[in-house]
Amino acid sequence: MAVDIEFSDLFRPELPVPAARWSGFPRYNFVGGHNDSASVPVDDMIRAVSDVLGREGHTLATYGLQSGPLGYRPLREFVVRKLAERCGMSVSADAVLITSGSNQALELVNTVLCAPGDTVLLEEFSYGGAISRLRGRGVTLAGVPIDSHGMRMDALASMLADHAARGSRVKYIYVIPTVQNPGGSVMPLDRRLDLLRLSAEYGVPIVEDECYADLTWDQQRPHAIASLDGAGNRVIHVGSFSKTIAPALRVGYVTAEQPVIAQMVACKSDGGTGALEQMMLAEYCNSRFDTHVETLVRTLEVKLDTLIDALGEEFGATAEFERPTGGIFLWVTLPDIVDTRVLATEAAAAGVALNPGPEWSADPEAARSRLRLCFGHPEAAEIREGVCILADICHRTFGVPVRSGNVARG
Amino acid sequence: MAVDIEFSDLFRPELPVPAARWSGFPRYNFVGGHNDSASVPVDDMIRAVSDVLGREGHTLATYGLQSGPLGYRPLREFVVRKLAERCGMSVSADAVLITSGSNQALELVNTVLCAPGDTVLLEEFSYGGAISRLRGRGVTLAGVPIDSHGMRMDALASMLADHAARGSRVKYIYVIPTVQNPGGSVMPLDRRLDLLRLSAEYGVPIVEDECYADLTWDQQRPHAIASLDGAGNRVIHVGSFSKTIAPALRVGYVTAEQPVIAQMVACKSDGGTGALEQMMLAEYCNSRFDTHVETLVRTLEVKLDTLIDALGEEFGATAEFERPTGGIFLWVTLPDIVDTRVLATEAAAAGVALNPGPEWSADPEAARSRLRLCFGHPEAAEIREGVCILADICHRTFGVPVRSGNVARG
Repeated sequence: MAVDIEFSDLFRPELPVPAARWSGFPRYNFVGGHNDSASVPVDDMIRAVSDVLGREGHTLATYGLQSGPLGYRPLREFVVRKLAERCGMSVSADAVLITSGSNQALELVNTVLCAPGDTVLLEEFSYGGAISRLRGRGVTLAGVPIDSHGMRMDALASMLADHAARGSRVKYIYVIPTVQNPGGSVMPLDRRLDLLRLSAEYGVPIVEDECYADLTWDQQRPHAIASLDGAGNRVIHVGSFSKTIAPALRVGYVTAEQPVIAQMVACKSDGGTGALEQMMLAEYCNSRFDTHVETLVRTLEVKLDTLIDALGEEFGATAEFERPTGGIFLWVTLPDIVDTRVLATEAAAAGVALNPGPEWSADPEAARSRLRLCFGHPEAAEIREGVCILADICHRTFGVPVRSGNVARG
Repeated sequence: MAVDIEFSDLFRPELPVPAARWSGFPRYNFVGGHNDSASVPVDDMIRAVSDVLGREGHTLATYGLQSGPLGYRPLREFVVRKLAERCGMSVSADAVLITSGSNQALELVNTVLCAPGDTVLLEEFSYGGAISRLRGRGVTLAGVPIDSHGMRMDALASMLADHAARGSRVKYIYVIPTVQNPGGSVMPLDRRLDLLRLSAEYGVPIVEDECYADLTWDQQRPHAIASLDGAGNRVIHVGSFSKTIAPALRVGYVTAEQPVIAQMVACKSDGGTGALEQMMLAEYCNSRFDTHVETLVRTLEVKLDTLIDALGEEFGATAEFERPTGGIFLWVTLPDIVDTRVLATEAAAAGVALNPGPEWSADPEAARSRLRLCFGHPEAAEIREGVCILADICHRTFGVPVRSGNVARG
């Protein structure tokens, strides 16, 4: 009489592929936004969270503490100051929504703006998480060519003109202007102004993702596109504490004009972002953010140099890349013969994890020989060993590199 | 030449109503899952978070700490022990997914199972957040009559038979068996077994929401429906730390058979739930959970008595209710003449916030004269004053109650 329940028969159509069972991090971990373990400011975090809980801990009894659904007000006020000092932006704390990582911010942007069949323009090579989210919603992606200064404005202009001529509405332009992911470039000021002019000309808003923007080696950067927007409402600006403080905290933010924020809040159905992280960050960042980030980027740049040295040693001229201006990743081009999806699979079996280029590309095939290597988390020895193993696998699978160091392979 | 950007023209169709600007909590706050402020175990929380960060703080550098996407493993292991000791359940830590509050768990259940036009059966009066989520997804709700022991099995049987006869597939049965929201009842064991038999007979899974289940006054309760399921896969079980420890933490959990969890993990796109809360809770709960909850429920029951006394004083026989067996809310029935949506609007203007019954009802009109009063957060004086103001407003608006205390009104 009993009917067996097969949940797979009950699942909604068009679900993503189920998650594989997690079996720990790979030994040589060149993927994900993980950061340098030793740089997590643990002692200062303990002081900060103890101080703020001692003062305000009883407010945990209410959803949203005493700050409402936008997030812990002292943290929003810190974000306002940070955006003013680092990005030249002038926003109110009431225009800042704290999110569970910048990914939730991007998710809310899409929830509010994107229906299946919509078009979004973005850098031809861009953040894989943004690409997969948009694809999952049935959004059409159009990749704008990039160069060493980021998105090319001549290409964007002709694409916008083409869409306008065809009566195809572009929902937004997604751009990572400061430490582009994966390219690592910083878009110069004149190009930012051009981008705003094109946004105005075609009435297409900009989503500016500044997830890595605080991590430039010299702690210099042009003002954010959002700060240069005379109209004041063309740009939705997204940022994060994951890369500057710690990714496991899951705290990011988004700022936009009030009707957009109000619509996002209505769609943010999680009852708020975790309070301890918000409280700790507000307490910690007010006095320590700048000092911490200055120290962190020195550590990250040393890791980048280690990675570049290892690639030079093991791949030589076979691996091409531009030195990034900040961040935690290097975007590498291998010879056309290499399919990095195959390379990633082979490497994974040897404990080396990397992002194959196609996952970071609006047109997957256009990046078949590219890969992204994240250097923030692995230690120097792991970087060197991992690259050595990768070169060996690449040679065995694709015949390149033909030399490593002074030694001919094969 | 510039085209103004009107985001409202760009919004996706069918968005929820934008959030109103937050203007602070109401003075007399009888809504929401807020808890008793003084009961938040602040000092122990500080010790717990300091200890765990001192020991493992550097793992914050990686997404998911060292535990993967299901959540911090020591917290999952505590949930396993809690479910065994309190609910009679036997689950593996690999079948527990930590979520950002039980609301994210419910959201994931619906994401995985529900498409527009699907049907879900639930108690006729049920959790407003679950109802609004399902409505937002275009799910058809069918309310099963309840009595003082929760969902009525005779009614459920005939509704399931009716749906089966019509070839209408029921996606799941949503039930809050232990401290029903809003009724406060506890479903007895025999009825739980009946529910499982019906689930088996019709092949319809059960979503068991035990959000308030740890808050029974006597700390006794029947085993969870999930524990009584011989087949072992008919029940998705949801719980939370919001009501026992603190709602601002945003930590809940869901357990189900592996394919369901794997599908939920694939849809949980937030990069994990906040790490500090998970770490602190695991550290704290292992030694303090039971003691804390025993103390908390004594405080809550005193507040319930205050509320019941105040209602008796101000409304007399005009307000009908059953004394709940635990939790933080009282489900009140007023005379038919009262529309609690109107009452809620009038009361809000006087600083008294309450949940009108229609928001907590599969059929809104069926609960037009009912309301939910949460007593966990307001202090005793606020409870008494708030009920006094409410009675006054109710009398002026609807003519009832006609007497308060020994004094005739009007």
